[in-house]
Amino acid sequence: MSGSLSVVGLGPGGLDTLTPEAAVCLQGADALYGYGPYLDRVPERRGQARHSSDNREEGARARDALNHAATGASVALVSGGDPGVFAMAAAVCEQIEGGAEAWRSLNVAIVPGITAMLAVAARVGAPLGHDFCAISLSDNLKHWSVIERRLDAAASGGFVTALYNPISRARPWQLGMAFERMRRYLPASTPTVFGRAIGRTGERVTVISLGAADPSIADMATLIIVGSALTRVIERPGMTPLVYTPRSAGLSGA
Amino acid sequence: MSGSLSVVGLGPGGLDTLTPEAAVCLQGADALYGYGPYLDRVPERRGQARHSSDNREEGARARDALNHAATGASVALVSGGDPGVFAMAAAVCEQIEGGAEAWRSLNVAIVPGITAMLAVAARVGAPLGHDFCAISLSDNLKHWSVIERRLDAAASGGFVTALYNPISRARPWQLGMAFERMRRYLPASTPTVFGRAIGRTGERVTVISLGAADPSIADMATLIIVGSALTRVIERPGMTPLVYTPRSAGLSGA
Repeated sequence: MSGSLSVVGLGPGGLDTLTPEAAVCLQGADALYGYGPYLDRVPERRGQARHSSDNREEGARARDALNHAATGASVALVSGGDPGVFAMAAAVCEQIEGGAEAWRSLNVAIVPGITAMLAVAARVGAPLGHDFCAISLSDNLKHWSVIERRLDAAASGGFVTALYNPISRARPWQLGMAFERMRRYLPASTPTVFGRAIGRTGERVTVISLGAADPSIADMATLIIVGSALTRVIERPGMTPLVYTPRSAGLSGA
Repeated sequence: MSGSLSVVGLGPGGLDTLTPEAAVCLQGADALYGYGPYLDRVPERRGQARHSSDNREEGARARDALNHAATGASVALVSGGDPGVFAMAAAVCEQIEGGAEAWRSLNVAIVPGITAMLAVAARVGAPLGHDFCAISLSDNLKHWSVIERRLDAAASGGFVTALYNPISRARPWQLGMAFERMRRYLPASTPTVFGRAIGRTGERVTVISLGAADPSIADMATLIIVGSALTRVIERPGMTPLVYTPRSAGLSGA
């Protein structure tokens, strides 16, 4: 009797960005585990158990799903976006490494999804068209000084930067500090994109300059892309502008 | 008469990772443009024109597609993986900015896809589970010195690094130089993943240490993930190991 655990990426929101691979996996599972609002996106199926848990209980959720799979069941753990990007896949690996020997024998599959930075980038053009970084602004699991050094490295190195987990009630000041930090290296005119709930109710995309970027534009569901010094805006008559980073970096290396 | 151009991400390969949004877009287009091997992945439809072009003719391909759309047609330009990551979306924006005024009035949509680093990461666990960078090793459009500085910033800053366009017949030495560069900052034991053609014929995934990483393992279809100092390997009895980067970075900030 060998159980299986799939960690399934739902993509940014709507079912039209859920891959067929992920849909089949969700459909076939004996039980689903996940953060409530993510589970709510998955169509109900008779006889399939659902176990929702709070956003912050990632370790416990992973252990519950692994324990259930170890009984021989086919279990799917749902994740927003891509499970490998600041999401459940690493949480599951952490539990496997430190947990029951039986968990190492489980068939574990990670099913990728469209992560938020790709969905937001697509809405405005191609801001990630050149080298880029993804940084989580949550200092729950790392020191703020580490985050600052990475923001410095990204902005001074000519990377475009995608900021995940930018703000929450418990972390109100980090995003403002991050913008301040990046303004040391980047022109105030640097295009900056705020995108939330892409493909879902409440979708909102804002293109603004880094100089004018205000943390109050963001909430927990927002992903922010700060351009490099080379990122450009193309104005279009009667339409939203396009934002893109050219594939070519000049001789200056900016 | 207003034409439209969609730049559509095919994901890593098989149709089971193509989003429904992308499938609908490809199905409904009057004409498809793209690099031949990518076009070959799209099911044929009667009455739909196909224009394939060489890998290196991205600017010309974008212009052809824009010109076609400007006649009022619904045109889809296909891209492997995600069109916004080292692919056609930026090439299209470049052409729009520098090209015919009419191109700015077109309805342009970027349809995201699973980019290679997400597909490769999913196959082995969660190597991108913490802050990470994506760097193209192609020095066709930027100086090698710029790439070196970014490799330094990524490896010294504690980022995991995904290397796109690692090697080709015209660029045989860059990957070896990149590994050498990263070995200055990272332990020889740093887990390194080579993944090629995920979900397609010829899929191959290799997990190796940075010290033993050899450029000859890679070809043009390969994506490489070099871990950070915190990336870990979990051995499993009779199964491929899991590779993951913990969500938590220690106090040392590594």
